Amino acid sequence: MMMLITYDVNTTNSPGRKRLRKVAKYCVNYGQRVQNSVFECVADAALMVRIKKDLVSMIDPSVDSLRFYSLGSSYRSKVEHYGAKPSYDAEGFLAL
Amino acid sequence: MMMLITYDVNTTNSPGRKRLRKVAKYCVNYGQRVQNSVFECVADAALMVRIKKDLVSMIDPSVDSLRFYSLGSSYRSKVEHYGAKPSYDAEGFLAL
Repeated sequence: MMMLITYDVNTTNSPGRKRLRKVAKYCVNYGQRVQNSVFECVADAALMVRIKKDLVSMIDPSVDSLRFYSLGSSYRSKVEHYGAKPSYDAEGFLAL
Repeated sequence: MMMLITYDVNTTNSPGRKRLRKVAKYCVNYGQRVQNSVFECVADAALMVRIKKDLVSMIDPSVDSLRFYSLGSSYRSKVEHYGAKPSYDAEGFLAL
């Protein structure tokens, strides 16, 4: 299954910038960065639960936000990309 | 149908910042801003085609990027939100 993760982290102060780095670093381990704050992860249900739990624990819920979109297994047909940063094949090699 | 729009616009110079404002302003007219660069639009197929065409014409494809995700009609069950900026009901009132 494909899960899309998008986040807004408030970086107006130093702790916020630290949270942003932490969230981004974590996401890089589990997904493909398709835009600055947008990651696509291919994971089973158990891993998705873990990723959600971990990320939720990293943010400050009063000023940051996280969104998770379940795109299912036929996600390739649901995504269109235009412009810079070409699409990645989340299950394969980086397509340049 | 729900379409998710995410964008990265390069704002390192003045024309980039102008493009960002233009893209954001356009998206506000057609969708709910759920994060800084993430919009959810409920639209039929014809409107989706128009939105894509308009947005693609606004970006600089060498440095900016746009992604469109089709979430179908049962999108409510596919989205989870955590933290600040509560979820919107794209077809209804703002849920505060």
